[in-house]
Amino acid sequence: MFRLLLAAAVIALAPAAHAADAKQMDENRKVVLQFYEAAINQKDFDAAAKFLGPRYTQHNPRAADGLEGLKAFLAFLRDKFPEYHSDIKRAFTDGDYVILHVHNMPTPGSRGNAIVDIFKLENGKIVEHWDVRQEIPEQSANSNTMF
Amino acid sequence: MFRLLLAAAVIALAPAAHAADAKQMDENRKVVLQFYEAAINQKDFDAAAKFLGPRYTQHNPRAADGLEGLKAFLAFLRDKFPEYHSDIKRAFTDGDYVILHVHNMPTPGSRGNAIVDIFKLENGKIVEHWDVRQEIPEQSANSNTMF
Repeated sequence: MFRLLLAAAVIALAPAAHAADAKQMDENRKVVLQFYEAAINQKDFDAAAKFLGPRYTQHNPRAADGLEGLKAFLAFLRDKFPEYHSDIKRAFTDGDYVILHVHNMPTPGSRGNAIVDIFKLENGKIVEHWDVRQEIPEQSANSNTMF
Repeated sequence: MFRLLLAAAVIALAPAAHAADAKQMDENRKVVLQFYEAAINQKDFDAAAKFLGPRYTQHNPRAADGLEGLKAFLAFLRDKFPEYHSDIKRAFTDGDYVILHVHNMPTPGSRGNAIVDIFKLENGKIVEHWDVRQEIPEQSANSNTMF
């Protein structure tokens, strides 16, 4: 009987690790959603910086590296595109990564851009960012929209 | 003792669901990687179609909807860009979705494009596709590359 219990206990341990991963991934998702709102929609660097780790490795070719690069980018948006806004259409998580599929409108009512943002997190903080951005064309070969 | 065993068994059941999800997600990832190689790199519609479900809802504005749209797109690539090639840099899975971050080169040695493809699967088959594509610029504000 002890052996049976032990076997059950060992089986039960495996999910504990999964549950921990799932919990961290859920936390990561929340961190990125809060960061995104603070940074992109509010353009509030101080509020956004709370979600960043000690580095912010930037792969967007239009933004300088690091936290200072993000600060400069948000200042640019605030100055030139004060109503720049992104709606999150889908959010995915996988391990240390959170991926957002968003509809970005530089100015209100503009057709805007489709963007996918990829964030890497360490210890629940954002440390790296990639994105890909495409202008939504006026015409499409299908009627499904880019989202 | 029976109660203890029962409790252990109930705890052990939870991970079974997680394990099934993880297994399906791993299968989905394999399906998408095989589909991508057959479709984009081999441009072989018949080989690629094996991985598609009864529908292929297309959100790429340059491609027509459905399996026929994919067939026409691959024929176009084969004709106009026979060496069109994409290297997969990252593959993510979340539930029914697989997300690829790829470096696409329409012609060999070209700087090319950064693309994120999002695939939705049902019953282990691909049924929907979104993507976002950005030309890699010659100059960047950082030295981290788009990948």
